[in-house]
Amino acid sequence: MEQIQAVLPEWVEASRRLTERGKVAAYIPELAKAPKNALGVFIVNMEGDSVSAGDCGLKFTLQSISKVFTLILALMDHGEQTIFSKVGMEPTGENFNSMIKLELVRPGIPFNPFINAGAITISSLIRGDGPIEKSARILQFFRHLASNDTLDYDLDVYRSESETGFLNRSLAYYLKENRVLNAEEDVEDLLAVYFRHCAVKVTCGDLGRMALVLAGDGVDPLTGKAMIPRRHVQIAKTFMTTCGMYNASGEFAIHVGLPAKSGVSGGILSIVPGRYGIGVLGPALNDKGNSVAGVDLLRRLSHAFDWSLF
Amino acid sequence: MEQIQAVLPEWVEASRRLTERGKVAAYIPELAKAPKNALGVFIVNMEGDSVSAGDCGLKFTLQSISKVFTLILALMDHGEQTIFSKVGMEPTGENFNSMIKLELVRPGIPFNPFINAGAITISSLIRGDGPIEKSARILQFFRHLASNDTLDYDLDVYRSESETGFLNRSLAYYLKENRVLNAEEDVEDLLAVYFRHCAVKVTCGDLGRMALVLAGDGVDPLTGKAMIPRRHVQIAKTFMTTCGMYNASGEFAIHVGLPAKSGVSGGILSIVPGRYGIGVLGPALNDKGNSVAGVDLLRRLSHAFDWSLF
Amino acid sequence: MEQIQAVLPEWVEASRRLTERGKVAAYIPELAKAPKNALGVFIVNMEGDSVSAGDCGLKFTLQSISKVFTLILALMDHGEQTIFSKVGMEPTGENFNSMIKLELVRPGIPFNPFINAGAITISSLIRGDGPIEKSARILQFFRHLASNDTLDYDLDVYRSESETGFLNRSLAYYLKENRVLNAEEDVEDLLAVYFRHCAVKVTCGDLGRMALVLAGDGVDPLTGKAMIPRRHVQIAKTFMTTCGMYNASGEFAIHVGLPAKSGVSGGILSIVPGRYGIGVLGPALNDKGNSVAGVDLLRRLSHAFDWSLF
Amino acid sequence: MEQIQAVLPEWVEASRRLTERGKVAAYIPELAKAPKNALGVFIVNMEGDSVSAGDCGLKFTLQSISKVFTLILALMDHGEQTIFSKVGMEPTGENFNSMIKLELVRPGIPFNPFINAGAITISSLIRGDGPIEKSARILQFFRHLASNDTLDYDLDVYRSESETGFLNRSLAYYLKENRVLNAEEDVEDLLAVYFRHCAVKVTCGDLGRMALVLAGDGVDPLTGKAMIPRRHVQIAKTFMTTCGMYNASGEFAIHVGLPAKSGVSGGILSIVPGRYGIGVLGPALNDKGNSVAGVDLLRRLSHAFDWSLF
Repeated sequence: MEQIQAVLPEWVEASRRLTERGKVAAYIPELAKAPKNALGVFIVNMEGDSVSAGDCGLKFTLQSISKVFTLILALMDHGEQTIFSKVGMEPTGENFNSMIKLELVRPGIPFNPFINAGAITISSLIRGDGPIEKSARILQFFRHLASNDTLDYDLDVYRSESETGFLNRSLAYYLKENRVLNAEEDVEDLLAVYFRHCAVKVTCGDLGRMALVLAGDGVDPLTGKAMIPRRHVQIAKTFMTTCGMYNASGEFAIHVGLPAKSGVSGGILSIVPGRYGIGVLGPALNDKGNSVAGVDLLRRLSHAFDWSLF
Repeated sequence: MEQIQAVLPEWVEASRRLTERGKVAAYIPELAKAPKNALGVFIVNMEGDSVSAGDCGLKFTLQSISKVFTLILALMDHGEQTIFSKVGMEPTGENFNSMIKLELVRPGIPFNPFINAGAITISSLIRGDGPIEKSARILQFFRHLASNDTLDYDLDVYRSESETGFLNRSLAYYLKENRVLNAEEDVEDLLAVYFRHCAVKVTCGDLGRMALVLAGDGVDPLTGKAMIPRRHVQIAKTFMTTCGMYNASGEFAIHVGLPAKSGVSGGILSIVPGRYGIGVLGPALNDKGNSVAGVDLLRRLSHAFDWSLF
Repeated sequence: MEQIQAVLPEWVEASRRLTERGKVAAYIPELAKAPKNALGVFIVNMEGDSVSAGDCGLKFTLQSISKVFTLILALMDHGEQTIFSKVGMEPTGENFNSMIKLELVRPGIPFNPFINAGAITISSLIRGDGPIEKSARILQFFRHLASNDTLDYDLDVYRSESETGFLNRSLAYYLKENRVLNAEEDVEDLLAVYFRHCAVKVTCGDLGRMALVLAGDGVDPLTGKAMIPRRHVQIAKTFMTTCGMYNASGEFAIHVGLPAKSGVSGGILSIVPGRYGIGVLGPALNDKGNSVAGVDLLRRLSHAFDWSLF
Repeated sequence: MEQIQAVLPEWVEASRRLTERGKVAAYIPELAKAPKNALGVFIVNMEGDSVSAGDCGLKFTLQSISKVFTLILALMDHGEQTIFSKVGMEPTGENFNSMIKLELVRPGIPFNPFINAGAITISSLIRGDGPIEKSARILQFFRHLASNDTLDYDLDVYRSESETGFLNRSLAYYLKENRVLNAEEDVEDLLAVYFRHCAVKVTCGDLGRMALVLAGDGVDPLTGKAMIPRRHVQIAKTFMTTCGMYNASGEFAIHVGLPAKSGVSGGILSIVPGRYGIGVLGPALNDKGNSVAGVDLLRRLSHAFDWSLF
C-alpha cells in the first residue's frame, strides 16, 4: 500500500490530462453536469487499509456498474441454470445497446448479462412482489455490500433516465416479443426497477468497498461475513473480464488484465483478486464509453504492480 | 372482361391447390381462424363492370394493405418533401419487421413507408387532434375510396394486435430514440392509430373498388371525382412495385409485374393501371408472408393477358 | 422529338451545374481522368430519329451497364429457370459490393444479377469454351445490339481493374466456397471475362442504340430483326427498375420511373418502353455511385414528358 | 499430480461418452478420417512430471491452435504496436470465419488475431524472405517450443486445405482490398504459409510441452531457457481467455476459466499458469467447433482442482 500511496497522487494528475480528449455523457442533463476534468481513485486492501487520491469526494450514479450486483443477486435468487437459460455468456463485439445481435442469434436471448438487453432481463429475474419490493431488495443488497446504509437513489437521474430511455423500452419490448421476458411482465414496472438500480448514488469509497467483497470471493474480509457464494463471485468476475468494459473489454484485458465494470457516469469498479477493491471516477469518457482517465490510471497501476490476471 | 370471366373460376380452383403448401398467420387467434383453403378474387374495370370468383364474400382485415392508403393520406396532409424527410424510398431485402436496417443505415430513418417502422412513422404524420380524430380521418378516407360507408374495424383483431404487438412497440420506441418520432409522440396513442387502420375489415370487392381509384390515377372512374392527386398515386404505385410484397417484391415484379400490396391476412390489392382494380383474398401464406394462391392467380392472369408493366 | 430537342440543350446545361457536387470515380487512374463537368445525352426513337446534347462524343466504359446485357445473354444461353437457381430477384438495400447479404441470406445465392456477386455469377454462366471464347461471344453480342462492329475493350481500364479488383476476387471466392460457382471454375479466368465486359468502350450514341432494342422489346425497330426474346427483355427491364441504380433504385423509381442501369464511369442507359432508347454520360457521381447530373437530367425529362412507368 | 492421475482415466471415459453428440470435421477428407470416439489428454508440470490418459498416441494437425504461436512469433518479430495496428483486441461474438464484422467495423481491421481474417493477417507479418523461409521459421519455432525436432507438416492435410480453402482466399482478398494486407502481398503465397502452419502434425504430448512454456511465462521450466518475452505470453494468454474457443469463449471462461485454444481437428491447448501445460485431443466437435469431450474433461478438471483464473 505504501508503494501505491507513493505514486498515486502523481499518476492521478498524469492520467487526468487525458480527460481533455474525452467527453462527459450528455444524453441527460444530470450526467452532463459532471466535472469533465475530475479523476478520483480509492483502493482498499483485505485488512481495510486504504489509499486514495484525486476527487474522491464526488458522488455519482452506478449506472452499468450496478449490473454486476443485480447479476449476483439474480444468481443468488435462482441459481446459475435459470439465469443462463435467459442470458448468454458471450462477448458481443457490439455496442452495449445494439439490437443487431438480438436479432441474428438463435434463440434470440441476450448475449450476456452486461449488455442492456441482458441487464434488463436480469432485472426482471430479481425476486420481489412488485417493482417497489424488487427495488428495495436491490438497494438493500447494495448497501450491505458497501457497508453503507445511506446509499440511495439520485432521483433526478432516475427521472431523467426514465423520461428519455426510449432505447431501453425498445429493447424491453423486443425481449417481450421474443419471450425472453414473460408476457405478464409490465415493461414500465420493469424499467422502473432497472432505472432505479442504475441511479444509485455512490462515491469511489463505496465502489472500492463493494469491490472488496468480490476481491474476497464473496466474504467481506473486514467482517468475515459470507455475503455471496464464491461461485457467483467467480461468474461475476469472469463476465467483468470478458465483457465488463463494453466493446473495449478485449483491449482492457490486454492492457490492464483485471476484472472491472464501467458505467456511463465515468465510474469503474475493479478488483485485484485476494488483494484489493478499487473504485475509480473520471466522468470524461472515451469513444467506447469508458472513463478515459480511469482506464489509463488502472493501466499504469496494473503495469507497475504486475496486477494482470494473465 | 369476358375473356377473364371465361377462365377465372377454373384458375381460382387451380391456384387454390397451392393453399396446401401455405400457412395461415397464427400469431393472434383471430387471424388463425381464417379458412386456409379459401381463395377469392374480384376485378373491376373503369366502366364499373366486374367479375369475381371463389370466396368473395369473406371479410378480412386490411393489415399491411392499409399502409398504401395511410401513405397517400399523409402525402395529401403534408406533401412529399415532408414525408420523405421521415421515411426513405428504398427496398430493404429484409423482413418487414426487421430492426437491422434501422440501425445500420444513416441517418436511421426507415427504409421505406411499407416496412413496419416506416408505416408507424407514416401513421404519426396523419393530421388530427389526438388518436381518435386521426383514426376517424383514416377510416373516413378508406370508406370514401371503397365507396362503402359501412367499412369498420374488426375490434377483436384490433384488441388482439394491440395486446400482443410488442415488436411494433419496440420499433416505435426505437424510432423515438432516433427522433424519427417526436419526443411528445405517445407510443401507445400512436400504435392505437396504427393497429386500428390495420384492423379495418373489407371484402375482395372493397379492395378492388379502392384499387380502382388508383387504377384511375386518383380519379374515381365511376363517379369522375378527383380523390387523390395523381402524383401521390404515382408515388404509391411505385412503392407497390418496388416494396409492396415484402421481401418477395422483386420476385413478384419478375413474375407478375403489377403494383400490388399484400397483408398478413392473405389479402392482396393490385391494379392494372388505367384498366382494372383487383382485390384478392387467400389466407394461406408462403414463407415470405404473401398469399401463396393469390400470388399464383395474379401470375396466371398477368401472364395470360400481358398485364406486366415491364 | 421536336419538343425534346427544344429543351435539351438548356436542360443539359442546368443539370451540368450539379456536377460540382459529384465526384469522378478514382479507384483506378483511368476512370479518374474523366472530365468531371462533362454531361452528354443521346435519345433515339423507334423510327431512328435522334436528338442529342452536350458532350456526346466522349467515350467511356460500360462498367455495370454491361450487366444488363450479360444477364440477357445468359438468359438466352440457359433459360430463366437455370439463371434463377443461381441468382435471386430481390433488391438489397445494400451497396453493390456488399458481402453482408451473401452471408445472411439462405441459401447464400446473390440477391440479384446486378450486384457484383450476382453479375460475376452471371458471367460464369455465359456459354463458351474458355474465357477467350466467352468474352468474344459477349463482345459480339454488344456490337450486334449497338449496330457497331467497332466496339472494343479499353485495355488500360481492363488491366487496371484486373490488377486492383481485390474485392471482386473476394466475392468470387466467397461464391465458390458456397458452391454458387462450380469448384472447377477458375476465378482468374472468370474475372478476366467479367473485367473485360465491364471495360467495353462506348459513346452515348452506342448506349442509346443498345437501349433502343430493349425499348422495342427485343426487336430492333430500325431493322425489324428479332434480337432478344421478349420475355428476356421483360426480365431485364424489371431488374433495371427495381435494382438498376444501385441502392438509389427506389429513389430513381420515385423521381424518374424508367428502367435504367448506371455504371461507375458515369454512364446511364435508360428506355421509354416502345418509344425511346437513351444514353447518358456524366462522370461526376453522387454518393450512391450514380451520375449526379445524369439522374437530374432524366428526372427533368421524365417529369416534363410524363415518362414514368407508374 | 497424483490426485490428477488418480481420477484421469475414469474422467476420460466419462467425457468420452459425449463424443456421441459431436461431429468430426468433414470439410476435407483428411480430417473426416479422425476417430470420432477418441479422447486423449496429457498434462505436464513445471518439474517435467507428466500424466496422461486415453488416446494420447494419436497424431493430429494443429489447425487454429497454431494461431497462438504465430501471434507470438509476429509479436517477437515486430512488437505489439505494429501488430495491433493490423489486428484488434476484441472478441466478436461471430463465427471464426465470418465476414460481417470485417465490413461493419471501422477501420476494417480484423477484430482479433484468432479469427481467420486476423490469423491470415498475422501470417503476413512473419518475417522471412518469401513463403518458404517464413514457413521454415514458423516450423522451427514450433519445434523449439515442443522440444521436438521431428514436428512436420501433414502434407495431405495441407494440400487438401489449400485446394478447398476458398473462404480463406475470399478473406485474404477482402483484407487486401482494405489494405490490411499490402498490395504486393501475393495471396497464394500468403495462404501457403497459413495453410502450412495449420497443418503441423502433433500429439497431445507435443501440445502439452508447448503449453508448458506458456505456463512458465515464456521460460521453458525444464531447461530454464527464455524462449518468449513474458509480455508476449501475457498477450497470448489474454486472447486465449477472451477469444480462444471461437464464439464459445465466454462460456468456456465461465465453466473452465483457463487460457485455451482449440482447433478444428479436435485439439485443445490449455494452461494452468505457473503449474501445468495441457494437451487434449477429441475429434468430435460441438456446434461451436470445439472438442465436445475435450471441453467437458477440462471442465471437470478445473472444477475439481479449482484451476479457474477467476
